[in-house]
Order: sequence, then C-alpha cells, then structure tokens
Amino acid sequence: MSEQGFFKRTHRCGELSEKQLNERVALNGWVQKRRDLGSLIFVDLRDRSGLIQIIFDRELSTEAFEKAEMLGTEYVISVQGKVVKRQAENPNLPTGKIEVHADAMLILNAAETPPIYIRDDDDVSEALRLKYRYLDLRKPGMQRNLLLRQQVANHVRQFLTEEGFVEVETPVLTKPTPEGARDYLVPSRVNPGKFYALPQSPQLFKQLLMVSGMDRYFQIVKCFRDEDLRADRQPEFTQIDCEMSFVTLEDVIDINSRLLQSLFKAVMSIDLPLTFKRLTYQDAISRFGSDKPDLRFGMELIDLAPVVTGCGFKVFDETLNKGGQVKCITVKGGAEAFTRKDISALEDLVKTYGAKGLAWMKVQTEDIVSPIKKFFSEETLVQILAKSEAEENDLILFIADEPSIVAASLGFLRCELAKRLKIIEPNQYQFVWITDFPLLEYDDEAERYVAMHHPFTSPVDADVTKLDTAPGEARAKAYDIVLNGYEIGGGSIRIHNASLQEKMFRTLGLNETEINEKFGFLLDAFRFGTPPHGGIAFGLDRLVMIMAGEENIRQVIAFPKTQNAGCPLTNAPSPADLKQLEELGISLLSLKSDSNPPHCQND
Amino acid sequence: MSEQGFFKRTHRCGELSEKQLNERVALNGWVQKRRDLGSLIFVDLRDRSGLIQIIFDRELSTEAFEKAEMLGTEYVISVQGKVVKRQAENPNLPTGKIEVHADAMLILNAAETPPIYIRDDDDVSEALRLKYRYLDLRKPGMQRNLLLRQQVANHVRQFLTEEGFVEVETPVLTKPTPEGARDYLVPSRVNPGKFYALPQSPQLFKQLLMVSGMDRYFQIVKCFRDEDLRADRQPEFTQIDCEMSFVTLEDVIDINSRLLQSLFKAVMSIDLPLTFKRLTYQDAISRFGSDKPDLRFGMELIDLAPVVTGCGFKVFDETLNKGGQVKCITVKGGAEAFTRKDISALEDLVKTYGAKGLAWMKVQTEDIVSPIKKFFSEETLVQILAKSEAEENDLILFIADEPSIVAASLGFLRCELAKRLKIIEPNQYQFVWITDFPLLEYDDEAERYVAMHHPFTSPVDADVTKLDTAPGEARAKAYDIVLNGYEIGGGSIRIHNASLQEKMFRTLGLNETEINEKFGFLLDAFRFGTPPHGGIAFGLDRLVMIMAGEENIRQVIAFPKTQNAGCPLTNAPSPADLKQLEELGISLLSLKSDSNPPHCQND
Repeated sequence: MSEQGFFKRTHRCGELSEKQLNERVALNGWVQKRRDLGSLIFVDLRDRSGLIQIIFDRELSTEAFEKAEMLGTEYVISVQGKVVKRQAENPNLPTGKIEVHADAMLILNAAETPPIYIRDDDDVSEALRLKYRYLDLRKPGMQRNLLLRQQVANHVRQFLTEEGFVEVETPVLTKPTPEGARDYLVPSRVNPGKFYALPQSPQLFKQLLMVSGMDRYFQIVKCFRDEDLRADRQPEFTQIDCEMSFVTLEDVIDINSRLLQSLFKAVMSIDLPLTFKRLTYQDAISRFGSDKPDLRFGMELIDLAPVVTGCGFKVFDETLNKGGQVKCITVKGGAEAFTRKDISALEDLVKTYGAKGLAWMKVQTEDIVSPIKKFFSEETLVQILAKSEAEENDLILFIADEPSIVAASLGFLRCELAKRLKIIEPNQYQFVWITDFPLLEYDDEAERYVAMHHPFTSPVDADVTKLDTAPGEARAKAYDIVLNGYEIGGGSIRIHNASLQEKMFRTLGLNETEINEKFGFLLDAFRFGTPPHGGIAFGLDRLVMIMAGEENIRQVIAFPKTQNAGCPLTNAPSPADLKQLEELGISLLSLKSDSNPPHCQND
Repeated sequence: MSEQGFFKRTHRCGELSEKQLNERVALNGWVQKRRDLGSLIFVDLRDRSGLIQIIFDRELSTEAFEKAEMLGTEYVISVQGKVVKRQAENPNLPTGKIEVHADAMLILNAAETPPIYIRDDDDVSEALRLKYRYLDLRKPGMQRNLLLRQQVANHVRQFLTEEGFVEVETPVLTKPTPEGARDYLVPSRVNPGKFYALPQSPQLFKQLLMVSGMDRYFQIVKCFRDEDLRADRQPEFTQIDCEMSFVTLEDVIDINSRLLQSLFKAVMSIDLPLTFKRLTYQDAISRFGSDKPDLRFGMELIDLAPVVTGCGFKVFDETLNKGGQVKCITVKGGAEAFTRKDISALEDLVKTYGAKGLAWMKVQTEDIVSPIKKFFSEETLVQILAKSEAEENDLILFIADEPSIVAASLGFLRCELAKRLKIIEPNQYQFVWITDFPLLEYDDEAERYVAMHHPFTSPVDADVTKLDTAPGEARAKAYDIVLNGYEIGGGSIRIHNASLQEKMFRTLGLNETEINEKFGFLLDAFRFGTPPHGGIAFGLDRLVMIMAGEENIRQVIAFPKTQNAGCPLTNAPSPADLKQLEELGISLLSLKSDSNPPHCQND
C-alpha cells in the first residue's frame, strides 16, 4: 500500500489476460456490480480499459471480504490479488477467461446510488445525462467516442504536419465577423465600451498567415456562433481549419481527399475510393434536391417536363408555364409500404418546405392507383412510368412548384423515405465534393447580394466580369465535402488581390467607410505581396459523430450545451456580479424589455 | 503555367541543393532583394524554407527579364528555370552553391514598399510590428518560433498519448471561476441577464473527467485571464493541461519530468538530467528569495543572524529583535563593477520591494569600504566576511527587514546583478521542482484565508487536522516546475473527498449557500465515486519562449495583444452595434462613470 492510501496499479483492468496467470496484480477502479455467494463475493471492477472479475474469499482474507461486503455500485476501490483461471469462462468479456483472487482491498471513495446506470443501454433522459455528465461519461460507449475523437484529431495533425502544414494558434478574443452569423461578444474592461468577439472561424487570420508566408497553415480550433441550436449545432464547435498558398481548387480537393482517405484507413480500417465523386452545385440540386446529397442510396429526382409538358393536367401545365418544375421520385416497394394516410402525412411534411401539395401514383398489378391518374392520357401515363422507371409495387411522388421548393421538398422526401424504408446499408461512407457554387445570393430582405460562402471567396476566373454585369450568375471557386448527406467541410480559393476584393465588397453593398472600417487591415495586407491561396474547414464534431455512428453531436462532445445553450451540469450561463459588470462598463437592460427579444436579422 | 496563373511549385526555395543541378524547377515566393547588373538581374527569392538566388538573363528570356525589371521588394512571383552551379558561392546561404536561371516568370502580386524590413535584425518599434504583423511574421526568426511552437505541441501530444492520456476538449463558454483572477464574461442572448465566463483553466472539468473514469486527461487549451498585462502575460494564453487518477505527487513529478526530458531531447537535442532538482518552498525562499529560483547561477542569500545578532548595529539588532532577518548576497567582482552611484540606484530599486535601505560592503585590497563598517567590531567584520564567503573585489549587499521583504529584495537583486554582470552562461536549462507550498495564505484585506494554489488542492496528509487548529501552517500537496527562474508549470494532488472539500471551502470563509451555488455540482460529483487524482498545467507560451531564447512571449504568439489588451492589426476590441447589445440584454454605462474604474478586488 502506498502512503497515499492505495495500491500502485500494475495493470488496467481490461489489460489483464491469461498472460498474467498466477501473477500478483494491483488494480484500481469502480465497482460495476457485486454479487454475494456465501463465503465468496464477486465484484466486476471497471476502469477505462474494461472489466475484470474480482473474487473476495472469506478464507483468503477475512479483512478484504468484510470490506467487500460494504461495497456498492460505483465505489472506488484499490485491490491486490492473484490472477487465476476462471472456472466458468465468460465469452462476452474480453477478460472472461481469468479472474483476480483478492487478498487485500482499500475503499478509496464510497458512492451514493447513481441516478443513471453506467451502461450503454441506459435509456435515461438526456437532461439527466447532461446534469450528471461525469457519470454518463463513465459509459463505455461515451468513452469510446471521446477516444475516437482523440484518434481523429491526432491523425489529422500527423497527416497535415507531414504535408508541411504548420499549426498556428489564432486569437479567441478578436474582432466581430462582418457578414457572418451572430457573434458572441466579450466586453473589454481595459477598453470600456468596446467588445471582443469570439471567432466564427479564423478566416481572416489564416489568410493573413498566408500573406505572412507561412505557406501551409492548419489549426484544430474552437469556433463560436450565437445561433439557435439544432441537433448538430453547438454554440462552440471545433473546426479542422486549413489554408494553403500557391494552390488551385484541384490541389485543395486532392490533399483533403487524401486526408480523409488516410484518416478512415488509419482510424477505421476502411478503404475509401482513391478519387471521391464530384457534383456541381446545379447537378446536386437537380438530381438530389440538396447541395449535401446523401449518396448512400438512389431515389434521384426525375424531371418530368419532357413527358408532361402540355399534358393537360392544369396543375402541371401552369407550373411549367410559370417557369416551375414538375419532378418526381420513385419509391421502390412504396405502393405497399405507404397507405393513403401515410402519404397524406408526408404531404403535411412537405408543406413545411413550401410545397402546395404532394401528388402520387401507386403502380400495382396491372393497374395504376392515383388521384391524378384521370388527368392523364394513357400515353402520358406510359411515358411517366417509363421516365420514372417505376415498376410494380413502386410509389411515385410528384412535386410541381418553383424549382427551390421542388428541390427542398423532394430532397427531404428521398432522405425521409430512405430512412423509413431502411434501404440505407450500414457502414457506408459516401463522400462527394460539391463545386461550382453560386458566388452570391440575392437577399430579398436586405435588398442586396450576400456572399453564399463568404466575401473572401474568389469568383471563377471566367466569371470575374459578371460581378459588374450579372452578379447573380457568377460562380465561386468554392467547394464543400459531403459525407452521407452531411456537409462535413467546405472552403474556397480566396481573392488575393486588393482591387478585386474591394470590388467584391462593393458588390455586397458596402460603402467606402464600411469597407475601411471592417476590412481596411485586410486590404492593406493585400498590398504588400499576397500569394494566391485557398483553404477549407472541416467540422470535427460532425465528422467524429458520423465516424462514431452517432446521430447527435452531443454524443461526441464531453460537456455539450443544451438546445437552450445552457450547461445543466455547471448551470452556466449564470448571473454576474453587479460590481463586475460595472468594471466592464455595462449594465443589464431590465428583464421586462428582454422578454420580447428584438428581431434578429442574422438568422 | 497552370490555368490559375502560376507555375505549380516543384520545390520550396530552401529545399534546393546541388542534387537538383541541371533540373528544371518551378518556384513561388517573395522577392527579398533585386540587384541589376547590366543584362543580368539577380533576385533573392524567399519562402518559408529559405532563400535562393534567381538570375534573369536578357539573353535567356527577354520577356522574363523585362518583367524582372519591374520587381520590387516583397513582390510575389512564380518562376521557372534551371538549377545551375553558382559562380561565386555564398557560404552564408544554405542554397549558396547554386542558383536558378529563370526562363519564365509571372508576377502574382505586386507590393508597395513595406513599412518594416523583412529581416531578423530589423529594429522597428513593436507597435509597428504588431500593426503589420503579417509582414513581421515573414521574418525567418518569427517563422522559426512558430515552427518551434508546433514542434513542442506535437511532441507533448505524442508523449502524453503514448502514456495513455486522452485529449478531451472542455468548454470555452462556461461558468465563472470562483476564487480565481478576474474572468472574461460573455453575455448570453438566449438567457438574458446571464453570462458565460471564459475559463481561466479547465480545472473543474478535468477533475470531473477523473470522476468520469477517463483516468488520464490532457489538453492543449486556450485559457483567459482579465488581468493587467506584463511582458509574459496575455489575456489569452495556452496551457498544456493534464490530470491523472490514482497517482501520488511523486507519480506526477516523475511523468512530467520525463515529458520535459523527452521534449528537450526531441526538439532541441538537449540531454536534461534524469532527475530534476527539488527544493521545498521554504528552502527556495530562504536560499534564493523566490519560489521560482533561477539556478543558472549561485549568489545565494546568506543568513547573517548567526554572526550579527547582538552586534551593536542598531538597524540589524532591532530588525532581529522584531523577528526580522538580516541577509546578504555576495556579488563576485562587484566591488569594482558597481560604483556608489550604481549601488544607490539599486537601493532605489529594492525600495520598490518594500526594503527600507540597502547596506553594502566592498572588499578591497587589505581593506573593507562600507558606510556601515564603523558599526561593527573587527571580529564581527571577519565573521561577516567568512559567512558571506566574500573575497577581494567582491561586493556584499545587505538587507535587514521582515522576512518577506528580505526575500523579495535580495531575490530581485541576485537576478538583476547576475544579468548585469552577464554571469549566466547561455544555453543552460536549469529545472527545479518546488514542493511543500503553504496550503493557505491569510488575506489581510479580505480578512480570511485564501488558497495559495486553488481551493481544490489537497493538504499534506499529516496536515489535514491543521485546517481546524492552524490553517496557516498546513502544507499543500502542490508543486511548481521552475525553469531558469520562470514558473513554467504547476499543479497539485486534489481533494477527492466531498467532506474534506467542504471543510476546505469553509476554511476559506464560504458559507453553505455560497458553497452550494458555486461548487454544489463538484461536491455532488464527489459523492458518486471519485478516484484520488492530481495534475499539472504548463504555460505553453512561456515554455516555448524560453526554448526559443526569447524574452517576451509575444515573440512566440502569432497575433498577440498589446499591454492594453488590444490588437493593433485588427483594432479589436471595437464598439458594438446597439442592436446587438439590446439582443444581449445589456447596455453601456456612460463613459463618464467609467473613466474612474471601480476598485478591483481580484488584482
């Protein structure tokens, strides 16, 4: 026994095997379970590495046995004893061929009955899990997730370091992000009335590092967005952030494809294809209804304009005449799987995407069942079946609407139905690069163009002149990498020329004063010799979530926030001292006026 | 030429050597210098890896030559040409045996004359360097520092991962740190009137990770303190943060000594001793006047009480009678090196440490020169010389005062004089562990005890009962690691028992409500099975600063803040939108009332 009151560990529990047979070992860990069998007490002892069965035998050590009688779940103990062959092997346990016969034991810390079970199939509410996160993180699955996260980060660092990237830390207390989402602000005590912002990304700093000749930069870095949360959003999230000088779009795509291939091979022993699929933004929207298409299954959107134009069905004809689209997806086996009621419920869902309705056809034995069948000639029906490649027992779902609604509605439906029909084979990792994004989108509310990626993204060379003539048509040197329907990363080749950058700001409606105030230092930098450069940022949380097979990023974050941006464990955020607020030069608005938060433009 | 307008790089400039003789290469980089010699133009081309001489010969390519005539310093260019042997080798340049005869060149970006020179011996003001940091970072020395920083971080990660530590990210938006320095606050929009704090360290989270059975945690992580800045302080700084379960103080010291040995070996090829020196806090203060002693030189503090007690010199006698100390340092060769005027200036300096005066003696050939000589008997003088080990030409400096002032004054003097006398040999790395710190200090202003390390530090086992009887005498299981007079890391074995932790909070004067509000979740956690644990945190900035041979941490941080906590490059912090403040539920106090910032208790 050490003077500090525990036996110095010789092994971790899960490391023991028949190799240690007859050795004396010392173990420290948590009591997973205790069973009493007369003069024997069986304890499953747990640490990060796994479980081992410990046996306390009254005849071997009365003292240890009597202490063992006091043990409850989650007690922390220190045990000494001999490794022996287990009489009844447990094939479900990696250490199931052995057990430890304890001759000495110390109780290091008692435990009250924990409010959640320490096992992966515990189904307690997430609220309770977050409040007692330190217990939740005892679960083997959660520990596995955090270990996986470390492996991913380590491998990424190793790969990028070998490729000549330098990890450089950029400031957390920095300047607000113009043109971005909502920033978190930090009042400055030393400069009263002024605020730092937490970075939404190190975008400008990484570009300045290129100006400084660092050549290849990366950082695994916390970023912050004060947005309303969704299942895969957190107020703080971690980015794998990269930037390279003297590169083209193809160079960035190449090195990052290799990064992902190398990562999946090293961490998951999965061989990804040497070249990832590529889709233009237009093709992705047109074929999958989304710029983050899930390619683990087909069910592509089919354009029916060639066969229904002028068909006489008023809804279709009017839509097409107004420049809209008529598209469908063909759901294999859907005729049987979905009742009229089911389809009506789906219709309600697509209405949230702006669709006015959902038409359908069931292809049944020698017949078509559909409320819209009567509007079509036999010939058109045959053509629809041919075009949609529908076969017996398939369901065809139609949306006729403006293009963005058709894409959103059918894009949603194909994913939703794939999930319901369980047609997605497990352990598939379908990567696709999306390119040729539009540079700008018109913001009706702001009555100006906004950058689709960000204002530092370079237009495609051939489209530079369109900034003057038709800004909405200019394409960007931007790219997203999509995995299984999740955007896991995105980036662009940047503008590296001060006058083009200034033109871009003007196209976004900024006047000279705004440009100088917000971006003067960047334009200055561009005047002292700036290399062509581009980069990418991956969302580490989301990437690890997919690799871990989880559906919620909170499963791969040790201490996440709730939907309400709070931490049930520590109760952050919390009220502040008036004195401290005074030091910071701020005061609270009365809570009354806060109960109606003002309209938030940045959402 | 690639379609993007530059030649795809075949090498970095500094990578070229005679191995590439007669090869065609493509290089991208910055113009360091241009010299024109008739029909030849010499350009030193620079990238992260170094310099290479490029020759533009009008006869080889008129087009390239004419473009080269336009080149100014810091232009970014892309060059193609052949590697040839240099006629006049430059032994000062790694690539000095070769040069590139360019036959094609593209100007990628022009440059205005930069406001600072891109070379290490540029001595422009730091203000200008920070404003144009992207130019400052082009200097080879700064790039070397950032590369060193990455190497250090990578090696630490590798070492700790191999030792079974898991890197886990902890929240940046979290709860205020009670009992710490001043926090940066972040107002919550979703929870108006409430605030997150940026972490001063992940202390509680890393302890909770031990409760969760992660066993060994580390993180290289940004931390934040809203303190007034000094040369080696920044509002945000980076910690190597570690925590381990089932360890004693000796285990933590052992693994972290090995970490540092391994780091210095890998990154600097330096063999550190296998065992680092150790000093108790008391010994460090008593012998070096500091708990972060610089052991690169001697000049220890010498206690003269044994030889001057009752000597008749009133200043000494009264000091000793009041429980004070009389100590000296012996400055080798100081008799000649320091004039009376120098010593008088030193006296002014020690007065800032609270000393009432500085007495001195010069040991000269067959004589002692000193204003206090007359107060001592011949015998006492001999004893003082013997005790101080002063020899001919040495200077003895005396402080008689209360112990803390003696330590601070002489501790300061020994370092200051060592610097002035240049007695510190370069490239020394003197590590020492300081242990046996007091657990508590009495805070006269707050009229209560405060934790010397933090409230989670365990008392030495034998001193637990002193919490009730004599809290000021209790020693802590705390340790600092000191390098060349800088505290580069510190930590402790923690309390892991809810009732001892509660007693500690009470000793610090917290009542039950405060304990529950601030630390309830920690005490809760300790009730569900907590292992004994302890850890350490290293200041990465400071460590890299010392390894880089720099004297200012801003030299190893890409984008540091000034003394005023501002960023001259981006102008952060900056005023915020009123609308955004409203969303956050806060308003600015009028600047008038801010012009006298209230008293700050936490300083």
